[in-house]
Amino acid sequence: MPRWEQGAEDRLRDAAIELFLEHGYENVTVTQITERAGLTRRTFSRYFADKRDVLFAGSEMLPVALADAVLEADAALTPFEALLTALEQVGGVLADRVAHHAAQRRAIVAASPELRERGRTKFADVAEALAGALRQRGASPSTAALMADVGVAIFQTAFGRWIDAPKDAMFAERVRAAADEIADAIGAGVKSRSR
Amino acid sequence: MPRWEQGAEDRLRDAAIELFLEHGYENVTVTQITERAGLTRRTFSRYFADKRDVLFAGSEMLPVALADAVLEADAALTPFEALLTALEQVGGVLADRVAHHAAQRRAIVAASPELRERGRTKFADVAEALAGALRQRGASPSTAALMADVGVAIFQTAFGRWIDAPKDAMFAERVRAAADEIADAIGAGVKSRSR
Repeated sequence: MPRWEQGAEDRLRDAAIELFLEHGYENVTVTQITERAGLTRRTFSRYFADKRDVLFAGSEMLPVALADAVLEADAALTPFEALLTALEQVGGVLADRVAHHAAQRRAIVAASPELRERGRTKFADVAEALAGALRQRGASPSTAALMADVGVAIFQTAFGRWIDAPKDAMFAERVRAAADEIADAIGAGVKSRSR
Repeated sequence: MPRWEQGAEDRLRDAAIELFLEHGYENVTVTQITERAGLTRRTFSRYFADKRDVLFAGSEMLPVALADAVLEADAALTPFEALLTALEQVGGVLADRVAHHAAQRRAIVAASPELRERGRTKFADVAEALAGALRQRGASPSTAALMADVGVAIFQTAFGRWIDAPKDAMFAERVRAAADEIADAIGAGVKSRSR
């Protein structure tokens, strides 16, 4: 890589995020991004397929990373315990990696129907991969799908709370707290309704 | 409505579902549907916007129906109890209404990327409406979003199990069982990990 392009990926991402926040994702072109970053379209193409990829690059690895972590968790754990462990581990690594841009990225995605749809597709892929891993650990297909969806809900909640207050708790603690909150809510409901 | 068009909506839906199963959703035209049903395109347009609408007609009412049921549930219930009650009530009505075609419809949607995406959008709308209702019942935005996502997971699981074995349990019992299954899974996990 030529010396003057060092840090090109970060410069492009920073420029893109600034522009998306200023003008709205839909209104920004790759040319504007490369001009703001002081780089060429050719350099852009070396790192990103298109402007959407600036926000989602790397996310195609999330389903496999989570599924692998479920499969590699201690064999003594129940499928759901293995799922929580995977969310804590992989989410923790992800949180560290994206900390710099996470809040801005969330605001950009929330403002764009196209990006929200992309986000849903991403998490559907995550849920499918998690369900596959849970079946391999012995869960029935129906239970695996349910636990995977609950796992995705926990992951998204933990991630959102961690973005809101990254210093208040580690990502893994956010995962545990969200799971406990669900169990408490269901427990209270079951008790009061079976009067 | 002219006498000979009585039952037109059902005839069109039956014809569409047959054709979707035979040829795949993507390969079926509205003309084929109307020919199979022995009706005109004009009649088709009276009931459905397009061929996708044959499968999703009425589903735009689901978010509002569920949110209303959450808001109208007994004021003494916790937000999550109100959510479960809404899922039981509205899901029960829906299950009765779609029983005739539910299994075929599921197979058609599962086979089509476009329809799966449509289904995700539909349930994202449901989750958003549920979260809004839970906030109105006093849940924080973050808790409301988490409970709404868990509610959608419960609803989808209950619906799937009910389609697989409609005579084994009422829809409402499926909702309760899925919620209990989540609470048990989390409870077991928390216990074993806090050794």
